[in-house]
Order: sequence, then structure tokens, then C-alpha cells
Amino acid sequence: MVKYAAAQSDRLTATFAALADPTRRAILARLSSGERSVTELAEPFDMSLPAVSKHLKVLQRAGLIARGRDAQWRPCRLQAGPLKDVDDWVERYRRHWEESFDRLDAYLDKLKKERKYGRDQ
Amino acid sequence: MVKYAAAQSDRLTATFAALADPTRRAILARLSSGERSVTELAEPFDMSLPAVSKHLKVLQRAGLIARGRDAQWRPCRLQAGPLKDVDDWVERYRRHWEESFDRLDAYLDKLKKERKYGRDQ
Repeated sequence: MVKYAAAQSDRLTATFAALADPTRRAILARLSSGERSVTELAEPFDMSLPAVSKHLKVLQRAGLIARGRDAQWRPCRLQAGPLKDVDDWVERYRRHWEESFDRLDAYLDKLKKERKYGRDQ
Repeated sequence: MVKYAAAQSDRLTATFAALADPTRRAILARLSSGERSVTELAEPFDMSLPAVSKHLKVLQRAGLIARGRDAQWRPCRLQAGPLKDVDDWVERYRRHWEESFDRLDAYLDKLKKERKYGRDQ
């Protein structure tokens, strides 16, 4: 169980590290509408094919994408499993941001009431 | 608008980079039950105070924690705003992992039916 938790923590670390790059997140966003070749993925970026391939390798090691087996084309496709782990992890903190929005709401209500009270004087 | 999107993307990058470390995630988990001093945060880790302080600085720069103003104690507290941004970002991929679980369900149903059919022969 401890071993499982450690492996899962390593996986989360690899996932977060892979997501800590705007180009890699843009690649995932493009793959979200279907599989793409490396050349297609490189198109919108001002980047060489080897630079894009490097990003793809990081995403692949983190299990966020898989490559097809066709030697000619090897299309990339999104694998959402690690993203579900991110969702499960962040979910635990939901009450914190909901609480802070509740506090903001309460503060704005108070301001509104004070303004109304000021006008009624 | 483009400027806003770029700033938000930089913020997400900083957040993901800060989360790509098991010690920093453990610190956030501890702060999730209330504010703590640096010494209290360092306790469960086999780590020097300066090493913990370094992690706290990364978390603080990413806006994930804030430090109190009391010069003696300066307790750390969780700030959940950037975690909400992570939740909003990952949410867009929800249908992908739900689809893959649906496919797994369908496959398991098929296996179960085949087993049942085999037994009935």
C-alpha cells in the first residue's frame, strides 16, 4: 500500500511536470479533438520538428499521449488517465476555493448593504 | 484579451511546476487543515529548515500559500485560487476519461456475457 502510494505520487509528479509547459498543454488541447501526426502538431508552433518531438516524449513518458504503431505515420493520441488523477487530487481542495468565494460573496453583500444604507440616509 | 490569456497561461505553468514535487504537495495537504509555522511544517519531513523554506518560496511565488505578517511567527496558510484554475483546466478533459471508462465497462460487460454464454453451453 505504501509502495502503491509512492508510485502514484511519482506518477502525479511526472504528470504535473509535463503539464508545466504552455506548448505541451497546447499539444494536449489539439489532441483533444482527435489524433494528429507530429507534422500536424508542429504546424501552429514556431518550432522545429525535433523540438516538438522532445515535448511529445515528455508527454509520452507521463502517459498523457500514446503513439500509433504505424512506422510511417505514428499518430499521437491523448490518454486521459493521468488527467483524471489530477482531477482526483485537486478535488480534495474544492472546499477551500468554494469557502473563499463564499467569503468574497459575503463581503460584496456587506458592501452593497452599506452603500444602500448610505444612500438611504 | 490575448495578454490576459498569456498571463493566465504563465500562472498555470507556475502552478503546475510548483505541484510537480511530492514534498510541496505534502505541505499543501498539511495546510489544508489550517495554518502552520515553518517549524511545524518541517516536522514530518527529514529535511533542514532552509530546504523547507525553499519549497515554501516556490509555493508562495505560485500563489499557493501566503505568509502571515507577524515577524516572529509568520504562519503559512493555503491559498486555493490557483488550484481552482487547475480544476477549470482539467475539467475540459473530463469527457475523455469518462469515455475511456465507458469503453472499459463495455468491454467488461462483453467478457461477462461471453463467460455466461460459455457456462450455458
